[in-house]
Amino acid sequence: MARFFVNSQDINSDLLVLTGENAEHAKVLRLNNGEVVTVCDGQGTECICTVQEVSAGQISLVVSERQASAVEACVRATVYMAFSKGDKFEHVVQKATELGAYEIVAFPSVRCVSRPDEKSLKKKVERWQKIATSAAEQSGRGRIPQVLVLDSYKKALERASQSDIGILFYENEQAKTLKMALSDKSFQTISFITGPEGGLDPKEVEQALSAGLQVCTLGKRILRCETAPLCALSAIMYHAGEF
Amino acid sequence: MARFFVNSQDINSDLLVLTGENAEHAKVLRLNNGEVVTVCDGQGTECICTVQEVSAGQISLVVSERQASAVEACVRATVYMAFSKGDKFEHVVQKATELGAYEIVAFPSVRCVSRPDEKSLKKKVERWQKIATSAAEQSGRGRIPQVLVLDSYKKALERASQSDIGILFYENEQAKTLKMALSDKSFQTISFITGPEGGLDPKEVEQALSAGLQVCTLGKRILRCETAPLCALSAIMYHAGEF
Repeated sequence: MARFFVNSQDINSDLLVLTGENAEHAKVLRLNNGEVVTVCDGQGTECICTVQEVSAGQISLVVSERQASAVEACVRATVYMAFSKGDKFEHVVQKATELGAYEIVAFPSVRCVSRPDEKSLKKKVERWQKIATSAAEQSGRGRIPQVLVLDSYKKALERASQSDIGILFYENEQAKTLKMALSDKSFQTISFITGPEGGLDPKEVEQALSAGLQVCTLGKRILRCETAPLCALSAIMYHAGEF
Repeated sequence: MARFFVNSQDINSDLLVLTGENAEHAKVLRLNNGEVVTVCDGQGTECICTVQEVSAGQISLVVSERQASAVEACVRATVYMAFSKGDKFEHVVQKATELGAYEIVAFPSVRCVSRPDEKSLKKKVERWQKIATSAAEQSGRGRIPQVLVLDSYKKALERASQSDIGILFYENEQAKTLKMALSDKSFQTISFITGPEGGLDPKEVEQALSAGLQVCTLGKRILRCETAPLCALSAIMYHAGEF
């Protein structure tokens, strides 16, 4: 079933209208009167709708059912990934959205080679948010993960430490596994941090411990900076009973 | 520590010589006499060596220690992925190698859009094997996963069913989770199959069941064909206690 995201204020009526990019998308799909589609507010509410009228640049829909999305994960996992080179963050935004991430957060760390300035960052965030929206549509999600940028590692630690479980993955950690951290207690929210291409600085690991985070390994093999967050997220969703 | 793969017959002596691409790589790294490197046979044996002499196109090494790689996963997981468009299989070869896959197998299925001919396939396999080698070096593995191509779905089923656990992931399966399949019994070898962009045909699912495979879900969100195998592999490694 085709899936469209609209602003949350546009989903309250029993008659919905798709315009702009949504209408273009509907045209590509050649939607006709009587067909059934899903319209989501990107916040977890979705409406099952029937196409009532197709006109140029506008599709009118009648809502037949309104429900909370059943596709969202049972835990809220926030991915914190250090700025990285090239299109790695885009890749992680797309895949982490499919895998059910609640939020995806970028932040600078000591060994980051990529340090985008404020202007280019604004454009990047818009682009990342679009990728998240598109991935949410494709994967059938009821919620679009928010993509955020923080301006310091310290803020990432502060924010991550507010979750039920907060983890920093460090390639030189050998003893503490993710399984130990997850088995410790039940959780509704979890945040985890992964480093840039050059890895995390030992001082950053100290800071994470001081902020109350657990420092864990992702195993004996060195994972690329774009592989680590997706590996961790998959394992967390598996642990939480999602599949 | 720098890491080189050589043919298994070239690792038996106490004096090893790096040539060709390995020597070029050593040159880029500016290796000097006295430095310590690891040389692997790609089959799970590795030697700790000291550089004895650097000359044009050739590096001589003295073996100080020979050991089984401690980095290989405790389970042998084989990834079966249907032929896919673009560079998705390359992506999966690289990431699955990092994540510890034992083998990576491509096969044709009913809804595959990509159907490479024999000639282009030969080139592709060479390229995929190179990607696996390079990813094995980067991630510190002691074994290079073999990349294989099968010429029918039937052969994939036959081969996969020989593992301790054989799984087919199907997007329309809702009841049976991966966790159920893995918790059923302990295993040393596991094979799992994922479909192409267009998904698997219901008849293929029937065939998998007849071949003795378990049909499982990867959760409520629809994963792209290149995301599914990496999600499954991460979860299996997590389950097996790798991290």
